[in-house]
Amino acid sequence: MRYDRNYLYIEPEEQARLATCRVLLGGCGIGSNIAECALRLGFERLRLVDGDTVSLSNLNRQNYTQQDIGRLKAETLAKRLRAIHPQASIEAISAFIDKNNMEDCLQGVDIAVNALDFTSDVPFLFDRACARRQIPVIHPYNLGWAALAIVVSPEGPFLDDIIGADPQRAEVRFVQHLLEAQLSKEETAWLHEIARRYVAMPERQSPPQLAVGSWAVAALTTRLLFLLATRPQEVAPYPKVYWLSAVQ
Amino acid sequence: MRYDRNYLYIEPEEQARLATCRVLLGGCGIGSNIAECALRLGFERLRLVDGDTVSLSNLNRQNYTQQDIGRLKAETLAKRLRAIHPQASIEAISAFIDKNNMEDCLQGVDIAVNALDFTSDVPFLFDRACARRQIPVIHPYNLGWAALAIVVSPEGPFLDDIIGADPQRAEVRFVQHLLEAQLSKEETAWLHEIARRYVAMPERQSPPQLAVGSWAVAALTTRLLFLLATRPQEVAPYPKVYWLSAVQ
Repeated sequence: MRYDRNYLYIEPEEQARLATCRVLLGGCGIGSNIAECALRLGFERLRLVDGDTVSLSNLNRQNYTQQDIGRLKAETLAKRLRAIHPQASIEAISAFIDKNNMEDCLQGVDIAVNALDFTSDVPFLFDRACARRQIPVIHPYNLGWAALAIVVSPEGPFLDDIIGADPQRAEVRFVQHLLEAQLSKEETAWLHEIARRYVAMPERQSPPQLAVGSWAVAALTTRLLFLLATRPQEVAPYPKVYWLSAVQ
Repeated sequence: MRYDRNYLYIEPEEQARLATCRVLLGGCGIGSNIAECALRLGFERLRLVDGDTVSLSNLNRQNYTQQDIGRLKAETLAKRLRAIHPQASIEAISAFIDKNNMEDCLQGVDIAVNALDFTSDVPFLFDRACARRQIPVIHPYNLGWAALAIVVSPEGPFLDDIIGADPQRAEVRFVQHLLEAQLSKEETAWLHEIARRYVAMPERQSPPQLAVGSWAVAALTTRLLFLLATRPQEVAPYPKVYWLSAVQ
């Protein structure tokens, strides 16, 4: 009944596979948008990890409400997801992923989403730890009016192979690298302009992000989760760039 | 503070325009996904119209929870939106739009979203009533792994000009028309296959829809709402097709 309207797109045996596939959401910022879309599609075993709390400036895009401000993101998101599907297995770990808890976080995981902040080398270590366990990793990026995602396979290459091991602004450097190397200049001219203005700002600020990008990221990442769970041979790892843009 | 992270993408005067722009969501099925994305971006004056109640089979994609089952969609959605932004003006009309209440629903509206079910000629009449008031209308479609939207300008053409005035399965006929006439065969081969299987089914069922399509529709429609509110000259009305596909 819950999944009746998934018919024709998702076969019964695929739906059953989604229900048992264990997904780790590393970071509950953009991860909060992905989690709800993935749960509604049929991913019923989600582990949410984040030590952060909700702030007012998250509400322009993340999956929280005004009364959630100050609350722990992982627990708050788990409450929302359990309200949508009380029978799903939603596990919240309200801690920042670090070297000490990383292996515990990855225990039993089939697919990981790396939506961690690049404030240390933890996001790099996360990918390597996943690789040792043969876990594919999706990296999602909110680019305002567009979404971008890549899949890091256990064989690599890894992000630090591509852009170097300095975590400072690594996500910005990586997106700039993709804009230069992988995407058509014509299609992304508006984004080059945003990137130029952002890098030129006198003080370092968190990158701008819109609700449109978060919704697009959730759609794109959920599609990749579906493929990785049911038809992994149809997923191309990096350097393939998955790109969804509302600027047309 | 709430919209701090919209910087670079949305100028302050554009943000102010979104806050005063009055959007009508005709239908709170796919409209429920659009409404939240639009609210988070900055649309603070939303009118939600739907006489339907939430059912379990909505939860694979629409913006409701399990305890909402049996409740009125418009009121339930309004509660969710007010929790996200208590200062926003969210108006719920728990009635199906018909000839009698249509003019009241359109009172004061700047942009309309036609997400009404094609079970009568009401969706056609809705577009004509909007045109008389110079209100542009967005038509959003959930196509499983993809989203499609068109904009009907007050000058037309209108949907019944394009596919005829029979409301029976008009949305299916219209999507098939677009697939044939406007979109590349290569890019939409997977969808032709779904459409073929759907039309061949012995009993008429509601079309299949996925969470991925709903999230993509919300992103695409919110982008169009932004343009219509701030830079209407950048929006191309039908026959331009806006298309966002996670199949790549």
